[in-house]
Amino acid sequence: MSTIPARALSRRALLTALTTSVAVLAARPLKIQAADAADGVEARLRALGLELPELAPAVANYVPFVRDGDQVFIAGQLPMVAGTLLYPGKVPVEVSLEQARQAARQCGLNILAALKTACDGDLNRVRRCLRLEGFVASADDFQQQSLVMNAASDLMVDVFADKGRHTRVAVGVNSLPLNACVEIAAVFAIDQA
Amino acid sequence: MSTIPARALSRRALLTALTTSVAVLAARPLKIQAADAADGVEARLRALGLELPELAPAVANYVPFVRDGDQVFIAGQLPMVAGTLLYPGKVPVEVSLEQARQAARQCGLNILAALKTACDGDLNRVRRCLRLEGFVASADDFQQQSLVMNAASDLMVDVFADKGRHTRVAVGVNSLPLNACVEIAAVFAIDQA
Amino acid sequence: MSTIPARALSRRALLTALTTSVAVLAARPLKIQAADAADGVEARLRALGLELPELAPAVANYVPFVRDGDQVFIAGQLPMVAGTLLYPGKVPVEVSLEQARQAARQCGLNILAALKTACDGDLNRVRRCLRLEGFVASADDFQQQSLVMNAASDLMVDVFADKGRHTRVAVGVNSLPLNACVEIAAVFAIDQA
Repeated sequence: MSTIPARALSRRALLTALTTSVAVLAARPLKIQAADAADGVEARLRALGLELPELAPAVANYVPFVRDGDQVFIAGQLPMVAGTLLYPGKVPVEVSLEQARQAARQCGLNILAALKTACDGDLNRVRRCLRLEGFVASADDFQQQSLVMNAASDLMVDVFADKGRHTRVAVGVNSLPLNACVEIAAVFAIDQA
Repeated sequence: MSTIPARALSRRALLTALTTSVAVLAARPLKIQAADAADGVEARLRALGLELPELAPAVANYVPFVRDGDQVFIAGQLPMVAGTLLYPGKVPVEVSLEQARQAARQCGLNILAALKTACDGDLNRVRRCLRLEGFVASADDFQQQSLVMNAASDLMVDVFADKGRHTRVAVGVNSLPLNACVEIAAVFAIDQA
Repeated sequence: MSTIPARALSRRALLTALTTSVAVLAARPLKIQAADAADGVEARLRALGLELPELAPAVANYVPFVRDGDQVFIAGQLPMVAGTLLYPGKVPVEVSLEQARQAARQCGLNILAALKTACDGDLNRVRRCLRLEGFVASADDFQQQSLVMNAASDLMVDVFADKGRHTRVAVGVNSLPLNACVEIAAVFAIDQA
């Protein structure tokens, strides 16, 4: 992570991010009738118009996830899209609330990408999202970290239904790596294959 | 949480909070002879003059606790008393050290309320407090986050004796949701019913 | 922790810290041929020129570690060396990046000291480093928390090889207890004796 320059958002990444966001926003009012629990998580992802990003390669002596027994720990994810950081800066001065929510959702998608690999590709093995830990790069007087984190929380419930309902830590911080506006880590319980 | 206005402390909430605090302070010098480990956690709570608050309802797609196997994850708790935030602001400029300690204790009480529900009402099933994670809204030069967190740590040991001795993370942050002065999350191990 | 004054680095502590660092830097280019996995973690520590510090005594109602089942939770460690805080202040204004990295490595050594006690002295029982959680006291525009944390991450892999590869949370905060420049907590999985 430390070797990736926090360069401005490329047009391609921006397009990808906005397309994803628009697809998500368009899909949410639907009742997602075709993707109930019986159809599995992948059908639900399709109904939501979500495509998981590729798992970013590890760039230091830490890894995107560790599975031990039934638990999967996911490393703190930044809102990277195709190698580019989405909306760097602090909320709400440099990054708007809505932009920060899109960034938090992107962190959530990156969490899901790591989780899928941890599950050997089968997200139906996810038993429960145990915790999301969210750090929002905040101006000293910003107090709406909860609203930012809701975008990631909503994603988990959209994807996993009741299994996606989790405990959460949401705090502000004065600075994040690469000037990211949000970083989110997670812990999941999964069933053995 | 995001829908609760960070309104000023109501007189009723203030009275409740102060009464609780006074009761606690008054009770602590006693040897708590009537409430040793054999009498159970509820007797200990009574001897301490503590009444657990009602579990606050979830207001978003996250939940106050998740139990998975032997572990209970508790969401980050704010110092809410009857729906009102205790002592909003940063320490020590807007909130005194002593006020922040009362707020941290209130976070601890809210953690216990969630934990009790996770234990199906039986706090005697608690095997160990594994971790408290405390975030103190701090002026840039405030360095006594440990003293704030001690109020929550002491509560756990008051209530659970040796089983309440835990690992801890205590850090300062520049901003918390709703302008709270402290947020504390927790992880417990419990025995099966 | 709250009772330890954040006094300036003593000459003895400085010497210890620098000696350790120099020994580590000198040892790292070597292939560590004498200390492969079969030789165990203690041999690896010797080859790295590392001596674990004594476990600091608990100074409040929290403890350096809790073991429950296969998991060991380690409390947030400050960069203490023989009771003195290494490099207090914020990065990079009062503490340089390189100093902060030395401090992070010291947090890692303190984590290992607690872990060794949790393993009844046998670090070969460590199955995996599951997570490091790092908080770097940062100026508002510091964005290299990852580089600081790499010093602790590298230590884990130096000591435990692949078992040391972990998930990580690295964030900036505006203030830490005692004016520490970094605080790191950890979770490990260990095998039963």
